[in-house]
Amino acid sequence: MSQDIRVTVWNEFRHERNDEEIGKTYPDGIHGAIAEGLNAIDGITARTATLDEPEHGLTEEVLANTDVLTWWGHMAHREVDEAIVDRVQKRVWEGMGLIVLHSGHHSKVFKGLMGSPANLHWREAGERERLWVVNPGHPIAKGLPAYFELEYEEMYGEPFTVPEPLETVFVSWFQGGEVFRSGLTYRRGAGNIFYFRPGHETYPTYHDANVGQVLRNAVNWAYQGDRHAHLMKAPNTPVAEAIEAIEERGAKLSAADHAGEVKS
Amino acid sequence: MSQDIRVTVWNEFRHERNDEEIGKTYPDGIHGAIAEGLNAIDGITARTATLDEPEHGLTEEVLANTDVLTWWGHMAHREVDEAIVDRVQKRVWEGMGLIVLHSGHHSKVFKGLMGSPANLHWREAGERERLWVVNPGHPIAKGLPAYFELEYEEMYGEPFTVPEPLETVFVSWFQGGEVFRSGLTYRRGAGNIFYFRPGHETYPTYHDANVGQVLRNAVNWAYQGDRHAHLMKAPNTPVAEAIEAIEERGAKLSAADHAGEVKS
Amino acid sequence: MSQDIRVTVWNEFRHERNDEEIGKTYPDGIHGAIAEGLNAIDGITARTATLDEPEHGLTEEVLANTDVLTWWGHMAHREVDEAIVDRVQKRVWEGMGLIVLHSGHHSKVFKGLMGSPANLHWREAGERERLWVVNPGHPIAKGLPAYFELEYEEMYGEPFTVPEPLETVFVSWFQGGEVFRSGLTYRRGAGNIFYFRPGHETYPTYHDANVGQVLRNAVNWAYQGDRHAHLMKAPNTPVAEAIEAIEERGAKLSAADHAGEVKS
Amino acid sequence: MSQDIRVTVWNEFRHERNDEEIGKTYPDGIHGAIAEGLNAIDGITARTATLDEPEHGLTEEVLANTDVLTWWGHMAHREVDEAIVDRVQKRVWEGMGLIVLHSGHHSKVFKGLMGSPANLHWREAGERERLWVVNPGHPIAKGLPAYFELEYEEMYGEPFTVPEPLETVFVSWFQGGEVFRSGLTYRRGAGNIFYFRPGHETYPTYHDANVGQVLRNAVNWAYQGDRHAHLMKAPNTPVAEAIEAIEERGAKLSAADHAGEVKS
Repeated sequence: MSQDIRVTVWNEFRHERNDEEIGKTYPDGIHGAIAEGLNAIDGITARTATLDEPEHGLTEEVLANTDVLTWWGHMAHREVDEAIVDRVQKRVWEGMGLIVLHSGHHSKVFKGLMGSPANLHWREAGERERLWVVNPGHPIAKGLPAYFELEYEEMYGEPFTVPEPLETVFVSWFQGGEVFRSGLTYRRGAGNIFYFRPGHETYPTYHDANVGQVLRNAVNWAYQGDRHAHLMKAPNTPVAEAIEAIEERGAKLSAADHAGEVKS
Repeated sequence: MSQDIRVTVWNEFRHERNDEEIGKTYPDGIHGAIAEGLNAIDGITARTATLDEPEHGLTEEVLANTDVLTWWGHMAHREVDEAIVDRVQKRVWEGMGLIVLHSGHHSKVFKGLMGSPANLHWREAGERERLWVVNPGHPIAKGLPAYFELEYEEMYGEPFTVPEPLETVFVSWFQGGEVFRSGLTYRRGAGNIFYFRPGHETYPTYHDANVGQVLRNAVNWAYQGDRHAHLMKAPNTPVAEAIEAIEERGAKLSAADHAGEVKS
Repeated sequence: MSQDIRVTVWNEFRHERNDEEIGKTYPDGIHGAIAEGLNAIDGITARTATLDEPEHGLTEEVLANTDVLTWWGHMAHREVDEAIVDRVQKRVWEGMGLIVLHSGHHSKVFKGLMGSPANLHWREAGERERLWVVNPGHPIAKGLPAYFELEYEEMYGEPFTVPEPLETVFVSWFQGGEVFRSGLTYRRGAGNIFYFRPGHETYPTYHDANVGQVLRNAVNWAYQGDRHAHLMKAPNTPVAEAIEAIEERGAKLSAADHAGEVKS
Repeated sequence: MSQDIRVTVWNEFRHERNDEEIGKTYPDGIHGAIAEGLNAIDGITARTATLDEPEHGLTEEVLANTDVLTWWGHMAHREVDEAIVDRVQKRVWEGMGLIVLHSGHHSKVFKGLMGSPANLHWREAGERERLWVVNPGHPIAKGLPAYFELEYEEMYGEPFTVPEPLETVFVSWFQGGEVFRSGLTYRRGAGNIFYFRPGHETYPTYHDANVGQVLRNAVNWAYQGDRHAHLMKAPNTPVAEAIEAIEERGAKLSAADHAGEVKS
């Protein structure tokens, strides 16, 4: 019997407490809505973590037992502790999957993994978004129609300054005239990363059935069961242990200089 | 008449002063050897900058007047000031080309732009490296033979934990049994990035004719003449200015929450 | 003094002769309009070729003297001779640039180079298309605004069944609700390929200034000056000529079987 | 209970019958050895098909019931019927996985899907090949060591004229001095494609445990359970059925010209 994929649903969890309307849309928080959708199917066990918990709910132990992390943040990106950012990024490199949602594009975690500003232009007008599946054979598009609509969404417009993805899965059409690459895949180290655009806090996006399907697909796609801790090192391979016999020759770096190296 | 490509050749410049042997191989520093090779052809004007200069020689003015930056560092990556790292990365996003050399794989600038640890395994044995051109139509391979050899080099072995590149240009064979993807292209923001593996400080790699050809090709490839400063912003597009007329509707984020945003 | 880039503008040239309206829009044919725009700037010399010329105007000599070929076809894809298709593809593999326009997505040349059906869905309603630059640092986007519009265009909708490109340069928004990846780059063998969506025969697209800018940029991007004829072969490297000395060992394929091989 | 992945292992099956030595190494043919290894684990059911069967063993029915096809061919690529080549390619576009092995790089099926000559240089000397995992988080590398060796193999050397892959999984080191990108992933239409280099007929490669692990991983990676037959069409979307209401306007293509179209 195979083990469930262990998902941690991370949320900033501020808007839902600050704003009565948003609180009504997400009475258990955005994280609550996402986790409920993931737990509704076999093969996934989701728990949650939020910004204001100790260590933002992302202790070493939590991350060690997380196969896939989802990330929603917006107004408090700057409050996320650098040490936790580093910890999350390291776990991604070791093989944890990461699904970055909507305004999470400006999170320290995502910008750091992209090596990019991840900018875009935006408008909050409750306009119609239509997501087209441009890569129908991709696992993240499984079971989806040719397109699906979110009647009320915030607009994000191109250019989205992120690296060219491994694959583009969705492209959005907006009522006001913009387009956006709304589903993008990456790998960093051994970890799979998926960016998914929709999910503005003032709209009920995370109660949408197609969005739920995308998230479940993305969790299954991002999961890979191994921890590649060895990738965190840059080891020396001694000459005597070379696979093919070689002899040391030529000039060598002096011991003093080696002392300054930052390889390992 | 077109203007020359303005290159800044950056070097840590420690090994050459600390180690007599290395100083003999590079009497003008590694930067001196690289700049000399670039200045030898029409269309490129190269100057140099080094770690121990004020602001590491990379003032706002220097970077504003740099089209392509080359980066060599090794023992003192940690001494590079975070503010300068940020400045360089921002200029790359705006469109400055970046050529990262050899042990520069572990520089803060490169790791930050890759969003990756950029680890590998290594051996300093003066062994033979043979670089195969795997992408003969790529501009960086222009004028090169099917392969070229460096009789004495440090070994870098896979896995090299960097993102899948836009294109792989070179793959290296090492005498001791390893392989390495030695020439990789990326774009971050509007800036082109090329990583080129060879160039250990104890060997005369930067005096090699084929290496010189690669560097000149890479400068020409990485150059793009515009400064895309607007990509550094994430502007709001007001509803009233939407390209296609739309009406505002649905819930809005409260002013208090907007105050916390970090979009722009 | 550098030599001009030699462009051959290929056109099916049927609609303009069959349909009075189209003939008025393109009195010199679509090829005439494209070639005129390319010849208007320094550094490019464009000539034309059309389907009904002998060998479709694409003799061995014409192709040998073509650095970049542009391709427009629609109603007569099936009439293009297989031998000419093979000839064009081979020249691309050797390094000739190829720019495929609009309904050229269903040409034998393009489908063959993509290894894909290159399907899409479509509508001819004279609707508005807005092309967004999603990759502002790409050479093909040089000098363009953030977006540009074609007030009357045919709609092409996703999914566009082509391989994931090296880079996506443009994404289109359509008035009727669709999106399309309108500017895609590829390399096949040593040749650069750019697919550019707009250009329906019933609209004056090839008289648009931004479209002209894209085509000139694309020609400059696709150009690479060398002919890589050696890539057309799969040569044996005899054991005695191995770079590193090795001894032949193990079982060998019998001569009879080698006779059947299709390597070279 | 989930259904097994249905694999068809295709083999030319000529060398094993023509050459006594090869026949001893593969008494049940190369296909027999591969199928046996796949059938040894839960979740995969493999059957075989060979060139000299009617329709090369690849009837419409067989392909309709194949989730993943593996392909080994060498001396008789030219004998593979064009109609079967078209049939296989169409099934890949619809979503069938394809694993192309060793000299299958020159098969009509693979060259057609790559849109490339897929050339390389080669040497049959029974030399040592060492495959390095360059992408340890990729599902095809699951459970493998950092590298594995095949003591006797044919050499394939770069440049391998195939498109830049989605991801590079393996790079090979050869004793005679060459390198090769030995594991490459692609998607064409909805179908996943993996090229895997080793497997010369005169050596016992398909009895190697690591090679078996790669093949099982590749089958699991290439599998996607849906048939995307709709991608084989390029349908018209009538104006009256546009998602967003639009009015037809501008010039229209005459009926005579539409008659010549090859869209659908």
